[in-house]
Amino acid sequence: MEEMIYWIGLVGMAVFAISGALAALRQELDPFGLLVIATVTAVGGGTLRDVLLDLPVFWVENPSALYVILAAAVITPFWARLLESRMKVLIWADACGLALFTATGTQKAMLAGSSAIVAVTMGVMTAAAGGAIRDILCNEIPLVLRKELYAVPAILGGSSFYLLTKAAVAPELTLVISCLVTLLVRLVAVTYSFSLPALGHRAEKQAAGREENN
Amino acid sequence: MEEMIYWIGLVGMAVFAISGALAALRQELDPFGLLVIATVTAVGGGTLRDVLLDLPVFWVENPSALYVILAAAVITPFWARLLESRMKVLIWADACGLALFTATGTQKAMLAGSSAIVAVTMGVMTAAAGGAIRDILCNEIPLVLRKELYAVPAILGGSSFYLLTKAAVAPELTLVISCLVTLLVRLVAVTYSFSLPALGHRAEKQAAGREENN
Amino acid sequence: MEEMIYWIGLVGMAVFAISGALAALRQELDPFGLLVIATVTAVGGGTLRDVLLDLPVFWVENPSALYVILAAAVITPFWARLLESRMKVLIWADACGLALFTATGTQKAMLAGSSAIVAVTMGVMTAAAGGAIRDILCNEIPLVLRKELYAVPAILGGSSFYLLTKAAVAPELTLVISCLVTLLVRLVAVTYSFSLPALGHRAEKQAAGREENN
Repeated sequence: MEEMIYWIGLVGMAVFAISGALAALRQELDPFGLLVIATVTAVGGGTLRDVLLDLPVFWVENPSALYVILAAAVITPFWARLLESRMKVLIWADACGLALFTATGTQKAMLAGSSAIVAVTMGVMTAAAGGAIRDILCNEIPLVLRKELYAVPAILGGSSFYLLTKAAVAPELTLVISCLVTLLVRLVAVTYSFSLPALGHRAEKQAAGREENN
Repeated sequence: MEEMIYWIGLVGMAVFAISGALAALRQELDPFGLLVIATVTAVGGGTLRDVLLDLPVFWVENPSALYVILAAAVITPFWARLLESRMKVLIWADACGLALFTATGTQKAMLAGSSAIVAVTMGVMTAAAGGAIRDILCNEIPLVLRKELYAVPAILGGSSFYLLTKAAVAPELTLVISCLVTLLVRLVAVTYSFSLPALGHRAEKQAAGREENN
Repeated sequence: MEEMIYWIGLVGMAVFAISGALAALRQELDPFGLLVIATVTAVGGGTLRDVLLDLPVFWVENPSALYVILAAAVITPFWARLLESRMKVLIWADACGLALFTATGTQKAMLAGSSAIVAVTMGVMTAAAGGAIRDILCNEIPLVLRKELYAVPAILGGSSFYLLTKAAVAPELTLVISCLVTLLVRLVAVTYSFSLPALGHRAEKQAAGREENN
């Protein structure tokens, strides 16, 4: 079980690294920039989690994730066209990564003794912060804060994981159900293009303000 | 005393969360984005302080701040218009938060054995870094680095706290004087629209460069 | 030897602080903003390294670097014109800082027991992350990810340091060779304006997309 999670985790890292590399290609960064963005997208969330929980950072302890990311980043430019014509596959793979990292992030925080709100926050952070840092480095408002229904599936999946664990459900079942919750909500959202409504009561005023600033 | 600081601290968190939520509304983020920006604005500075001092992060240990922030963020959109017509109240509340967090941040660093320059840096960081991270997430140059006389009151307040503590003044008096220094300088600055002069000798050249880039 | 590294390190801090202060002047920040950008540019990389390795942050332990940075930042505006007409000197000094911080960062990670890929990553991060954070604060895509051949010299220098240390070469010689590798590659790159080719196969599509977004 442990081992299976470990291997699925590495696959999730590769998927996140590829999504970072594709973003870097869109920004026309150089190969080193591509490598940095891919790495940050893949390990950013887990790194933040480990630093905030004051645990050893996972890739400093065991750098195998870095080699997987390096490999994924290096090959991405050669099949970028193909990948983008297969966006559906990428979105599914990304949803799997989201589901898995939410569950394992929540678990790690619970093992470190975190309360409910902190554990779920850590789970969501593990899954979503890497993408947010990627967007900051690419000088964009993080997508997760803006458009896609990305964090809500993670919040529901992480909460399921917390509640099922507290209800003493078997760990394997807890992991599977939590991942399914995240996965289903995410895929329904993607399929039907659900998104939370943008808040903000001053759209026109702001647009006017922007013109004045330019 | 301890307890009073704790409760005032929670009020300060709420004020900072509201200021973050208002910024998120201006950016037309979705509800999750609003929550993230509100949280980061409120806990960002203290989190950075605790990580740099290698102390347990305060909201991981005791997540009550997170619940206060959650409540403040959720209600903000419903009275955003009212809040913005009462900007004066917000600015006063924000100045109180600035004063209190500078003092308690400086204190926490001193208790951890920091030297003068580190302790004051930590105090200013506790009070001002959350707002800076908020601006980065919203893809703006942090306001604290640009326009408002925001950090200078904190530097003076934090320095007062350090000096009075070293002079063995009673802790209660130290806290009150330090907060008053920050508060007064901040409110005088706001009232008379003081700000440090922008440096930079190449304004025209840069403006020209910007046009070329577009 | 230890002491010489310490003093050269302080000079490197000053150079990085000046480069940060010059960037702040170009952004027309206020004096506090200039101080923050200068500090972050100088200590950002080493701070990130220490937090990720779970070591005490170097400037919290020994704040002398902060005083050097403070001095360098304060005097920069008064000779900014002169400095920019002497860009060549600055670029050389910056290359020396890059070389030294890569070597000492790699060394610190190795002493903390890091594996090859983590040690070199930490070396490069120590030397280059401060500049990247500076660019994020100034709301630009980090230069190190985009244009200059800046990271590659550090990767080569850090790898040399790792390999020579593992080959049991004398520490002094290891340091000198590693620094020379970084320095030479960097200066050749600057002299002949080498840079890695920008990747990205969709420049036109993206430009079109940008127009639609505006």
